[in-house]
Amino acid sequence: MKAIQLRNPDDARSLELVDTDTPQLREGEVLVKVHAAGVNRADLLQARGHYPPPPGASEIIGLECAGVIVDPGTTGRREGEEVACLLSGGAYAEFVAVPEGQLMPIPEGYSMTEAAAVVEVACTVWSNLGMLAGLRAGQTVLIHGGAGGIGTFAIQLCKQLGATVAVTAGSAEKLETCRELGADILVNYREEDFAEVLKGRCDVILDIIGAKYLRQNLRALNEDGQLIIIGLQGGVKTEINLGALLPRRLSIRGTTLRARSTEGKAEVVASTIENVWPLLADSRVTHHIHATFPLAEAAAAHELLDSGEVTGKLVLEA
Amino acid sequence: MKAIQLRNPDDARSLELVDTDTPQLREGEVLVKVHAAGVNRADLLQARGHYPPPPGASEIIGLECAGVIVDPGTTGRREGEEVACLLSGGAYAEFVAVPEGQLMPIPEGYSMTEAAAVVEVACTVWSNLGMLAGLRAGQTVLIHGGAGGIGTFAIQLCKQLGATVAVTAGSAEKLETCRELGADILVNYREEDFAEVLKGRCDVILDIIGAKYLRQNLRALNEDGQLIIIGLQGGVKTEINLGALLPRRLSIRGTTLRARSTEGKAEVVASTIENVWPLLADSRVTHHIHATFPLAEAAAAHELLDSGEVTGKLVLEA
Ligand SMILES: NC(=O)c1ccc[n+]([C@@H]2O[C@H](COP(=O)([O-])OP(=O)(O)OC[C@H]3O[C@@H](n4cnc5c(N)ncnc54)[C@H](OP(=O)(O)O)[C@@H]3O)[C@@H](O)[C@H]2O)c1
Ligand SMILES: NC(=O)c1ccc[n+]([C@@H]2O[C@H](COP(=O)([O-])OP(=O)(O)OC[C@H]3O[C@@H](n4cnc5c(N)ncnc54)[C@H](OP(=O)(O)O)[C@@H]3O)[C@@H](O)[C@H]2O)c1
Repeated sequence: MKAIQLRNPDDARSLELVDTDTPQLREGEVLVKVHAAGVNRADLLQARGHYPPPPGASEIIGLECAGVIVDPGTTGRREGEEVACLLSGGAYAEFVAVPEGQLMPIPEGYSMTEAAAVVEVACTVWSNLGMLAGLRAGQTVLIHGGAGGIGTFAIQLCKQLGATVAVTAGSAEKLETCRELGADILVNYREEDFAEVLKGRCDVILDIIGAKYLRQNLRALNEDGQLIIIGLQGGVKTEINLGALLPRRLSIRGTTLRARSTEGKAEVVASTIENVWPLLADSRVTHHIHATFPLAEAAAAHELLDSGEVTGKLVLEA
Repeated sequence: MKAIQLRNPDDARSLELVDTDTPQLREGEVLVKVHAAGVNRADLLQARGHYPPPPGASEIIGLECAGVIVDPGTTGRREGEEVACLLSGGAYAEFVAVPEGQLMPIPEGYSMTEAAAVVEVACTVWSNLGMLAGLRAGQTVLIHGGAGGIGTFAIQLCKQLGATVAVTAGSAEKLETCRELGADILVNYREEDFAEVLKGRCDVILDIIGAKYLRQNLRALNEDGQLIIIGLQGGVKTEINLGALLPRRLSIRGTTLRARSTEGKAEVVASTIENVWPLLADSRVTHHIHATFPLAEAAAAHELLDSGEVTGKLVLEA
């Protein structure tokens, strides 16, 4: 089959479509012909050699796709069934092997491209804000990077949960997109200190920055506030004042979807289908696609995402 | 009334029984004549001027007591009713005003002294390990300072919840006490690195050390592990590597019972009565009193607790 690989392991831009082996199915996996694959920030890291796939996962880049089952293996699935897939890797290819628990239906009314744009963001946002944080109506949530792939989806989902939504982003245009998606409180992090604006008001923070924002995030939290860190774009190491946690009963938690076990991913996928898919079916929450590229032009897609000019998601098409 | 006060604000040892005003009842409070008051490590800090009472709370030291209602105020309580009380302050005195939601029955078969020895530890341990962490049968919990007031109670309660219990303490004698109370894994922190012994095995850690143990605590946690910090005996500021949290989905949380609102304390008290008091009634969990002192000798009790020679609780008697 064809798949995207690095021609030169030291050059993250040298992504090329090359011939490689079609994946072998393991027990409980189906083979999917990929029609569309979403691009994630983690893919840029992996191309740079910074985010190696978990043990046993495909070495090929790509954490989500939509396509058609061409070999159901030992599962009871049907050949020809259209599916969206949460992956530990392997989406930037013609075929990918997928554990049955990571298959999702194509959301009602969605194209393959649209489906590939929502799998990773839906599972990430729901597992963190719904399953873990238990975000409730009337609470205030802060979403850093509101105009990103995660952010554009999180804003809409949090509004559906009845929360007041605050976001940060780096430009007025991006903040305007956030407002259109439903965000209530807009902070341009290049001009304002979000901790000053939101001091003591946030019940939950979905953070993609890490070290650089830790102190400010803790300041922004309300009593019983939860900081959930899913990205470390602002570094991993910093000083912490644990004394800040106790009187307000704050919590700090970090998670990665990719590192979860097959069972853990299946649990997230099942809960996301149950709780989020109905919201997609009647467009209460929608995909937000910035641009699409042919799979062969993965390098160009990565370059665009890296530029910081993207609002929402990029998708590669077969 | 008589109460313990600092004769010299700069000398934590100058605790003396002096005349002062009997507390005025506020709406929803009852007046309790104190028969016994538990001594807590926080009391030592307060005597040193390091742990000021929350706004509105009594300036008098003392976070728990047992006694008799002498004025039910506007509540429906009965004069002469014997009660145990969770307090924001005020126990080292002849009388204390107590919000009704912070009254507990005297545990079945308990003396006043015994009741005063369990209120703070029961509410603290249950609110953190039961209500917050949701400790379950089959999980492993690490309790730092297993031979202290909190520790001696936590070991027993965790065994009742069906957990495997690991403890740290600073001497073989203290560890032997922990073993007798039910602890399964004993670590002398002066001789061994607990993180080495418990690496990746703990589902929950109840920590009283803070900064000094942060890195080791994170190492000791299992996937989805929860670090709950209730004391900062080893300092507040340290470096954190947030990258350690994400792959194993670790969480760090800090809490203080004293800083909770009146409603928050009432919630903890009600849940503790429901879940812990029955275990006291049939001795599945018991008090662990090291020594008692007359109230007038509070200074001697503080000196003893400060010496590090105490196993379990100290109680002051009227
Ligand atoms: N742990 C997990 O399971 C998991 C799963 C999926 C994604 N993630 C992580 O989540 C993050 C977002 O992923 P994504 O796919 O949404 O990436 P993305 O589309 O590139 O979005 C990132 C956004 O962050 C904004 N940003 C950059 N610096 C910022 C700052 N200092 N303050 C606030 N916003 C800032 C960027 O735009 P502007 O700066 O122009 O506003 C951009 O919109 C990534 O770090 C990714 O690795 C984690
Ligand atoms: N946040 C809250 O709501 C709350 C409520 C109650 C208590 N607390 C806190 O919880 C802590 C314990 O309270 P307590 O009343 O149980 O005090 P305690 O009776 O004095 O117990 C503290 C224990 O810690 C042990 N210890 C000291 N250094 C240690 C170390 N490096 N590693 C492991 N153990 C160590 C001490 O004995 P050895 O060193 O000899 O083993 C002692 O047994 C205090 O910091 C207190 O302020 C917090």
